[in-house]
Amino acid sequence: MRCDVLAVGTELLLGQIVDTNSAWLGEQLAAIGIDTYDHRKVGDNRDRIVAALSALLEHADAVIVCGGLGPTQDDLTRDALAALMGVELERDPELVTYIGSIFGARGRDMPASNLRQADVPVGATVLANPMGTAPGLRAELDDKVVYCVPGVPHELREMVTAHVLPDLLARCGEESVIVSRSLKTWGTSESALAELIADRVDAQTNPTIAFLARGIEGLVVRITAKAPTRDEAEALLTTEEKELRGALGELVFAVDDDTMESEVLRLLLERRWMLGVAESLTGGLVGARLADPPGASHAFRGTIASYQTEVKRDLLGVMAEQVVSEEAAVEMAEAAQRVLGADVGIAITGVAGPAEQDGQPVGTVWFGIAIPGAPTEAVTARLPGDRIRIRQFATISLLNLLRLRLAALP
Amino acid sequence: MRCDVLAVGTELLLGQIVDTNSAWLGEQLAAIGIDTYDHRKVGDNRDRIVAALSALLEHADAVIVCGGLGPTQDDLTRDALAALMGVELERDPELVTYIGSIFGARGRDMPASNLRQADVPVGATVLANPMGTAPGLRAELDDKVVYCVPGVPHELREMVTAHVLPDLLARCGEESVIVSRSLKTWGTSESALAELIADRVDAQTNPTIAFLARGIEGLVVRITAKAPTRDEAEALLTTEEKELRGALGELVFAVDDDTMESEVLRLLLERRWMLGVAESLTGGLVGARLADPPGASHAFRGTIASYQTEVKRDLLGVMAEQVVSEEAAVEMAEAAQRVLGADVGIAITGVAGPAEQDGQPVGTVWFGIAIPGAPTEAVTARLPGDRIRIRQFATISLLNLLRLRLAALP
Repeated sequence: MRCDVLAVGTELLLGQIVDTNSAWLGEQLAAIGIDTYDHRKVGDNRDRIVAALSALLEHADAVIVCGGLGPTQDDLTRDALAALMGVELERDPELVTYIGSIFGARGRDMPASNLRQADVPVGATVLANPMGTAPGLRAELDDKVVYCVPGVPHELREMVTAHVLPDLLARCGEESVIVSRSLKTWGTSESALAELIADRVDAQTNPTIAFLARGIEGLVVRITAKAPTRDEAEALLTTEEKELRGALGELVFAVDDDTMESEVLRLLLERRWMLGVAESLTGGLVGARLADPPGASHAFRGTIASYQTEVKRDLLGVMAEQVVSEEAAVEMAEAAQRVLGADVGIAITGVAGPAEQDGQPVGTVWFGIAIPGAPTEAVTARLPGDRIRIRQFATISLLNLLRLRLAALP
Repeated sequence: MRCDVLAVGTELLLGQIVDTNSAWLGEQLAAIGIDTYDHRKVGDNRDRIVAALSALLEHADAVIVCGGLGPTQDDLTRDALAALMGVELERDPELVTYIGSIFGARGRDMPASNLRQADVPVGATVLANPMGTAPGLRAELDDKVVYCVPGVPHELREMVTAHVLPDLLARCGEESVIVSRSLKTWGTSESALAELIADRVDAQTNPTIAFLARGIEGLVVRITAKAPTRDEAEALLTTEEKELRGALGELVFAVDDDTMESEVLRLLLERRWMLGVAESLTGGLVGARLADPPGASHAFRGTIASYQTEVKRDLLGVMAEQVVSEEAAVEMAEAAQRVLGADVGIAITGVAGPAEQDGQPVGTVWFGIAIPGAPTEAVTARLPGDRIRIRQFATISLLNLLRLRLAALP
């Protein structure tokens, strides 16, 4: 089974928007074992949509068309599909009622142009869009199939997950349920990671194992399992996860939607500890990440970003002569506990560049960690990259260090 | 003149990497008036690269191929181009020396596989890559042209700017210099912006005017001018910028590479004022942005992100009963001045959600601004979106408010 992708929109060709939909679709298709070989972008032009779609259907069994289902005259995916099928568009009264009800719920009148969204090529099937006014479409052409889905990413994801992927699986005669689990790792390179789990990767049949590089957010090991029922598939995932965790150990920091910061907050909550942060080169990035998860306030008291040396001295009471040093990191972590009234204090100081500072090269970073019942600890690192990358790297590295220390407590 | 784009890489189809190159290329081509109608992605497969390239060349005058120029067996763009040209690959001794010298400069031995990067289809021209080991290629096919450039974004941008765009312009018989300037705006909708400068847009011939939506970073009005020399083109830009600024007024917050935070820091430096921040729902985001520009420490003292109410009371001395209120915003801004020893204090408090707080709905935000010689001011807003969007929106809104107040000072 081969399913290709066509993204529609002049704004994509002009670079006004980056097409992230086709990458997401590629990831989903790969996860369920469907090949995808050709992804295209064309503008809002009916003839070019028709031409691209027919060219793709020469080689692919299925094509997902993203975008061009909006209410304006520029939205031509419906018209292109009808032209390709050689049929007319017909207004669907149920869709008219549905779209009207969405506007009604928002207390607004439906502009007449939105009626275009109720037009369906004769013979095509409507795919419900619970998140917006643009319904999707499915059309059979001989033994092939075309899915048209909205270009708005969250609407696309919902519709593809609910309708398109199950339909594709059914068409491959696949009656199985396919589920995935992502183990997020931090702290090693892709090749080192691959080596650690080489025997699992070599042995893979079901579940399968894939690597996804997530840049500054680390590397993801994705496990995908197939089974007659969801419970059986989940059981396969759980067994494989256990094997992989055995090899990967503490490199795994979170699973699926969990993040480095949600994991840190979870570990703190377990002990009912409050966290305070003192930052320098990161200017508030560590605090901003810790405030991301809903409910962060149950364990995160706040951050003091002492960007200037005077603030380190006056507000945090840092006495160390060099503000990028082991002593400064220790003093800042303890100040975060004291000044913010926290149980755990973490701190970061370093040189983000562009120029070196007090003879310390760009990328030099000191982390401080103060945990109840243990001596305050300082750890140094030399981080690569430019100013922005060093600050992001420093942020996640500090959170990871705290995670490891909390997880290692008896 | 029509130039299409082919991005090569199985990792793009699998969604392991999002293709941002073709959007960037589309933007550049549009800016110099070259049409682009068809962008494609194919995997690391020689025959599929050849097939896509010949299909694109049926309609386009030029094609830019991105990626597949690396040193591994998977990098097949060179081979595909040779196959399309019907010629052999020949090792270029100058390239061998050049690639060897790059490894030498890094103090490393060159792996034998990197020699593949010195292979050139007979008759193709090498495009220098000052930033990496992958040289680019240009090949003429009858009256058409193919450019192969590396997939690494900063290498691609350098090579396209230096070699590809000028070559394309020369081929359209264009001997002019083309330059652009981006006016970044914040504070209005795309349709309102378009209305404000409708007469300039209607009258456009040279310079041309385009809108680019940059999401949470606002809307960009890009002016592009063409002239026989750079000086003349710059003069056209300057005249048009003046006209546009007349209509847009204080909506324009920065030009080209400047940002909201660099503009705020510049205005502070002009008066030699130091800035302190007190944040709540943003958790450190405001500080993190202010610490972004190099040299931020000349005007930015730091931020206190008082995520919990106790920190607002104990460290900032906030007495207001409701922590999301006009009184709290005023108290926090003045505390930022006092506690951080700053001339100017700004503050933000609000409800990021998911749940309402003290009866205030999600999205309610209060900004506080304390500037020497003026009464401390509080401004409220109701921001749309989810938790993440509300926090980002709040951050840039506060910085914009400070920018407007500083710019309005006598």
